[in-house]
Amino acid sequence: MPSFQPAIPKVNLNEVETPALLLDMDIFEKNLITMENALAGSGVRLRAHTKAHKCSEIAKRQVAAGAVGVCCQKVSEAVTMAAAGIKNILITNQIVDPVKIQRLCSLGEKTEIAVLCDSKEAIPLLSKAATANRLTLKILIEVNVGANRCGVDAGDPVASLASEVDKAPGLHFAGLQAYHGSAQHLVSARDRQVKISSTIAKVKRSKASLAAAGLDRKWITGAGTGSFTFERDSGVYSEVQAGSYAFMDGDYAKIKGDDGNPFTIFSHSLFLWSSVISSPRAGQAFLDVGHKGHSMDSGLATVSGLDGIEVTGQSDEHTALEIGHNAKALKIGKKLKLIPGHVDPTFNLHDWVVCIRKNKVEDIWPIDARGPGF
Amino acid sequence: MPSFQPAIPKVNLNEVETPALLLDMDIFEKNLITMENALAGSGVRLRAHTKAHKCSEIAKRQVAAGAVGVCCQKVSEAVTMAAAGIKNILITNQIVDPVKIQRLCSLGEKTEIAVLCDSKEAIPLLSKAATANRLTLKILIEVNVGANRCGVDAGDPVASLASEVDKAPGLHFAGLQAYHGSAQHLVSARDRQVKISSTIAKVKRSKASLAAAGLDRKWITGAGTGSFTFERDSGVYSEVQAGSYAFMDGDYAKIKGDDGNPFTIFSHSLFLWSSVISSPRAGQAFLDVGHKGHSMDSGLATVSGLDGIEVTGQSDEHTALEIGHNAKALKIGKKLKLIPGHVDPTFNLHDWVVCIRKNKVEDIWPIDARGPGF
Repeated sequence: MPSFQPAIPKVNLNEVETPALLLDMDIFEKNLITMENALAGSGVRLRAHTKAHKCSEIAKRQVAAGAVGVCCQKVSEAVTMAAAGIKNILITNQIVDPVKIQRLCSLGEKTEIAVLCDSKEAIPLLSKAATANRLTLKILIEVNVGANRCGVDAGDPVASLASEVDKAPGLHFAGLQAYHGSAQHLVSARDRQVKISSTIAKVKRSKASLAAAGLDRKWITGAGTGSFTFERDSGVYSEVQAGSYAFMDGDYAKIKGDDGNPFTIFSHSLFLWSSVISSPRAGQAFLDVGHKGHSMDSGLATVSGLDGIEVTGQSDEHTALEIGHNAKALKIGKKLKLIPGHVDPTFNLHDWVVCIRKNKVEDIWPIDARGPGF
Repeated sequence: MPSFQPAIPKVNLNEVETPALLLDMDIFEKNLITMENALAGSGVRLRAHTKAHKCSEIAKRQVAAGAVGVCCQKVSEAVTMAAAGIKNILITNQIVDPVKIQRLCSLGEKTEIAVLCDSKEAIPLLSKAATANRLTLKILIEVNVGANRCGVDAGDPVASLASEVDKAPGLHFAGLQAYHGSAQHLVSARDRQVKISSTIAKVKRSKASLAAAGLDRKWITGAGTGSFTFERDSGVYSEVQAGSYAFMDGDYAKIKGDDGNPFTIFSHSLFLWSSVISSPRAGQAFLDVGHKGHSMDSGLATVSGLDGIEVTGQSDEHTALEIGHNAKALKIGKKLKLIPGHVDPTFNLHDWVVCIRKNKVEDIWPIDARGPGF
């Protein structure tokens, strides 16, 4: 398929075509180091979540900066990451289609792989494929952390399913997945802490049930950018699964730290580069990007670095701006940076991310696992 | 880039991997004929809007079913459509980047092309490229239909800009773009009619100003699936730009016809095929598709053909279902059809559309203009 590339290396930022995702490399690299430092000495490792970016070049840099491996949400993403040389992959999702399980097993020869399970029905499917491929598939039980989404209830139900998994030929019960997604975006640090304390209690209760069944395991994985310090300090988690930390977004920019100030240990490195294409009335302008280049599931994008200019709406093809009385008018053709409302589904709309350093294009990386994912 | 294909021809529907877009060919073809019949004898032609699907195979079938040509929203989409043999393309957007204007002009040798303008600032940019390419670029003035988005105000401002366009070397003022997007989705037929009557009045006022300036033109284009009968019967429109008519979606399913009944002349042909991957508690199930395979900007998807099962939420990776007391439980691995909330941005998330006839895969078409568009 044709895949228009918005830039070539070495050109100036202003020559990058719009709409395009820009990655400010200095900030991105700083975010990676900040996470590395935040985990240093804790005994807890980062397992970078590639669902945020679906880009193997980014994943490789996260591993180089200390991540033990990556998480993927889909087997197709794992195939892409494994092909790029990532050696340790956890699928943080239920995989129940025999075609997909076979695809996953076929990675197992060269790559450490593991996958979740939250139902007895999935066990024979996973077991059959593992034995056919003569490998031992590592299985983590997903714990219902309180959000009542996927995952079995904490405590004895976890131990009961773990026991069945561990008995199945070709399967090894390897640990627990306990990720509280909706807790990540709670504005108050205290609210996040309360939710995660409850999650940690559920993990401890499950570990007690597992220990009683002779199935205690050290591999406890979960946590995201908004909460990872709580899981890090829990004494039970061995891994945190942050992804957005490398980029930040409008949604994460709203959350506060312990002191009530913005949670600023990570900085915005990802921007949506766009152009003014219409300015038919004073005080208004329209950009060349809408739902097809920016996902507004967590709110509108915001304008970066231009005072008095607000995003007031987004349609299929356009973003509407209101230009305040004291702001400079925006000429037709003017290119500007937006901060995406939500990193993950916005990355997923683009085929390329343009790496920028000091206003020059350093590289262009394919978002090679982009798509709905199989 | 790797692009996983969710099916191969001739297999049964149940072997199609999830998540995937399904196009029910019998219904799709019937929708094309319904539109052809709805316009027959009116003197008004369909210019199918490819922003809905971004798929050249679909565009070719729309042209074969009577469309005079297509609309595109981005130059990159036009490049894809022209490469597939579409001979008549209107870009229904402002194009102001010299790189993109040059790309558009380079199509002009083999393809009829036209583009919008709503600012004086764009004229020298368009004129320079047209003369450099030794072609006459057809320009439509976009009229502000009352939504206060892109477009110049009706009447004299339209004539004034048209006159400047027509004087510019290499440019020909060819007609008017007058599309009222937000009117398409008003539930009541009467409300849609009121909005479109006002749009038609603005077009007539603009035509009067143009006639006074010796610039009256017959090419008046606009309208969508929700309103096209009003523009068809207006006496001034020469084209309608419907796109969703071929597919329908949850948003269009809500609108009513003249009689207050659902607007049923078109039927759902597009479905999102998905699998139950988790069902941890009675009454709940989770599907393997979320924001990355379904755009919920116009609301959640709905379940097709299974009574008592409701979509209650969508997250990045999952769709949550509530299973009513009288509904059959959904087993792990069960595949089902969702009706997308909004066709356009949902097509844009997928790389393939799987063509189904009588529960067999007939073909798999690439969504070859997918992406944010350059």
